[in-house]
Amino acid sequence: MADEDERVRIGIVGCAEIARKLCRAISLSPSATLWAIGSRSIDKARSFAHQNGLSSSVRLYGSYMEVVEDPDVDAVYLPLPTSLHVQWAVLAARHKKHVLLEKPAALDLPQLDQILEACSSNRVQFMDGAMWLHHPRTSRMRELMTDPQLFGHLNSVHRNSTFCATPEFLDGNIRVKPDLDGLGALGDLGWYSVGSILWAAGYRLPTSVVALPQVTCNSAGVILACSASLIWDWRRVPNPDLDSPRHPHPPYQTVATFHCSFLANLSMDLAIIGSNGSIHVMDLTIPIEEQSASFDFTPATKFVELHIGWSTKPERIQVSSELPQEALMVEEFASLVRGIKRSGCQPDSKWPEISRKTQLVLDAVKKSIDLGYAPVHL
Amino acid sequence: MADEDERVRIGIVGCAEIARKLCRAISLSPSATLWAIGSRSIDKARSFAHQNGLSSSVRLYGSYMEVVEDPDVDAVYLPLPTSLHVQWAVLAARHKKHVLLEKPAALDLPQLDQILEACSSNRVQFMDGAMWLHHPRTSRMRELMTDPQLFGHLNSVHRNSTFCATPEFLDGNIRVKPDLDGLGALGDLGWYSVGSILWAAGYRLPTSVVALPQVTCNSAGVILACSASLIWDWRRVPNPDLDSPRHPHPPYQTVATFHCSFLANLSMDLAIIGSNGSIHVMDLTIPIEEQSASFDFTPATKFVELHIGWSTKPERIQVSSELPQEALMVEEFASLVRGIKRSGCQPDSKWPEISRKTQLVLDAVKKSIDLGYAPVHL
Repeated sequence: MADEDERVRIGIVGCAEIARKLCRAISLSPSATLWAIGSRSIDKARSFAHQNGLSSSVRLYGSYMEVVEDPDVDAVYLPLPTSLHVQWAVLAARHKKHVLLEKPAALDLPQLDQILEACSSNRVQFMDGAMWLHHPRTSRMRELMTDPQLFGHLNSVHRNSTFCATPEFLDGNIRVKPDLDGLGALGDLGWYSVGSILWAAGYRLPTSVVALPQVTCNSAGVILACSASLIWDWRRVPNPDLDSPRHPHPPYQTVATFHCSFLANLSMDLAIIGSNGSIHVMDLTIPIEEQSASFDFTPATKFVELHIGWSTKPERIQVSSELPQEALMVEEFASLVRGIKRSGCQPDSKWPEISRKTQLVLDAVKKSIDLGYAPVHL
Repeated sequence: MADEDERVRIGIVGCAEIARKLCRAISLSPSATLWAIGSRSIDKARSFAHQNGLSSSVRLYGSYMEVVEDPDVDAVYLPLPTSLHVQWAVLAARHKKHVLLEKPAALDLPQLDQILEACSSNRVQFMDGAMWLHHPRTSRMRELMTDPQLFGHLNSVHRNSTFCATPEFLDGNIRVKPDLDGLGALGDLGWYSVGSILWAAGYRLPTSVVALPQVTCNSAGVILACSASLIWDWRRVPNPDLDSPRHPHPPYQTVATFHCSFLANLSMDLAIIGSNGSIHVMDLTIPIEEQSASFDFTPATKFVELHIGWSTKPERIQVSSELPQEALMVEEFASLVRGIKRSGCQPDSKWPEISRKTQLVLDAVKKSIDLGYAPVHL
C-alpha cells in the first residue's frame, strides 16, 4: 500500500447506486482513498455515508461544486446521469481534477470531445467506468488472441448484454428518462457491447455499422432494446497481416453483432471466433464470482473420423483476481494519476481513445436507427 | 430390436463422405437396416462397401436409379449435391420410397415444394438430415423453454456455425461449386443456423429477414461466409400469450442473428435469451462427445448486493444419449416409415414443415443478399 499521503484522493460527485460499489472499490484499492462525497443536499450525502459505513474522515458536501472545488481532491468519480456528464466532467477538468466517468461517457461524440478536450488541455487523466477491461481475464484473453497460431485473424464476434429490469426501473430509473440518459439501453448496455466488440477487434474501427430493424422503445422514445452489426471490410483497411499468403481468400471480412435489452434475463456473453481458435465468455461485464472468472478457449478444432465428435474440447481457463475488477480499475486510474502528479508523466491516451471509439460507434448505431436502419459508413 | 424382416430397408443413393456416417447410424438403429448402395459406377459402390466394412448382404448398384427401382428398398437416404435433390427425391417418392434428404433440402423453396408435393401425393415420409434435432438434449432444452417461469418469452437468439475449410475443400468440394451446391455456406451451415433459430422460436416464422452487409464469396460467386438477422415483430403476429398483462411493454420484438462461415475455426454455439432464463450451447450441430452432451441454463438471475456478482450461477445440464444423434434420426425416420407401411399411418407432417420453413427463411436471406441487404418481409 502507498503511504497514506501518497494515495490519490478521490471525490465522488453524486450518490447514485453505483457509487456504493465504487466506495468499496476505492477502499480496496491500495493507491486510492475516498476523500469526499457530494450530493445535491448535505442530508443525502450524510445518509449515503451512514448507509455505507464510510469513515468520518470522508468530507461530506451538499453540492457537486464543493467536491470539484476542494483543493485536496485529486480526482473525481462521476456517477451522474449522462446528460450531466459534459457539464461536470469539463468543470472538474478545469479544476485540474482527474476524471473517472461512469458510462456511457456522453450523450454523443461532440459532448465527449468537449470532455476529452478539457481533460487534455488541463493535463488530467480521463477514464470511463468500464470495469471489465481491468479484469486479468481480459488480458489473458488478449494474450491468446494475439497468438496467430492459437487464434489467427478475427472472423466474427457476438455479444449479448441484457438484464431484466423491474417495473420500477422501467417506470422511473434515470436510464429510461429522455432528459437524463437519452440513449437508454443503447447507452447503458450498448457501451459494454460496443466496447467489448471494439476490444476484440483490437480497437480498429469498423468500416460500417448498421442497426437491426428491431428496436423497442418506451413511450418517451427511449431505447429499451436494440441490436446492431458492425462490419470490417478489410479490403478498405490496409493491413499487411491480411495481405499475406496465409489469407488467400479475399475479400476477407469480419462481422460483429450485439443485442442489448432491459427486457430479458441477465446475459453478458461474448463469442469471438477466429480463424484458428475461438473464445466464449458467459459473464464478461460482471463476473459471476469475484475471486475467479473463466472463459472457454477452443483451439484449432476438427471433427474426428466420421464427423461424430470434436478432435479437441474447449478448455475452460480460470483466471483468479486478487482484487475485484472495479478495484483494479480504481488502482489503474490512481496509479496513472499518481504518475502525472508526482512524476510529471503525461496522461495515458489509451483510455480516452477507447472511450472515444466506443462513443463514435454508439453514435453510428443511433444514427442508423434514426435513418431507418440504414448502414452508416465510418 | 425389431424382427429382421420388420426393419426398414434403406438404400443410399450416392457415396458421399457423409454417407459413411449414415451407414454407421443405420447399423446402430434397431429399426433400420442398410439394404443397398448405389453409386455412379459399380466400382465406386464396391470400393465404398469395402472401405466401410459393409456386410456382403448389402446390394451394390452402379447407378442411382437401381436403388430407387429396387422393390425391396423401403426408403432412400440421399446425400447428393443439392442441385440433384429435386430430381432424385421426386423420383424416389414416385417409386414410393420414403425420403431422408441431406441438407440443404433444395436450392430454393420452389424446388423443395416439388419434392414435398411428390412425397405427399405418394404418401411417403419426408425428413431432412438435421441430426441435432433428434438428440435428447434438444428435447431437454425445449422442456425448459416451454416453462413460462423458467424461460418466459423469447428475447434473442444468436447462432454461430463455422468451420475452417482446408484449401482442398475451398478448391474442389461440392459445397463451393456453383452448379452443385450453389448456396455454399448459406446452404450448408446456414441450414443449421436458420433451423436452430426457427426451432428456438417454436417454428413461428419471422416477420422480416435481413442479411448483414458482410458476405464473402469465392471467385465463382458461391457464398463462403455470411450473416443475417431475423426479426419477429409480435405486434404483427397475433399471440394471446403476449397480449397478457405479463408483457406490459409493447412494442415487443424478438431478434435473432447468425453467422456462418467456411473460413473460421469450428463453432456451433447457440445463445437463447428469454425474459426469465437463458440457454447457451457450445456444440449444437455435432456434440463434442457421443455419449453425453451439455448446455448451460441460467435461470432468472439478478446481481448480488452492490452488483459484484450473480445471484445464481448458470447450471450445466448434462444429457446422456444411448445412441448417437444420427442413429436417433434414422430410428425416428424408420419408425415413421414402419407406421406408414405396417399400420397405415399418415406421414408425419412435422418434418416436411420444419424443412419448408427453414428453406423459406434461407431463400429470404439469399434474396436480401441479392437485393443489396434489403429487408425481406415474410
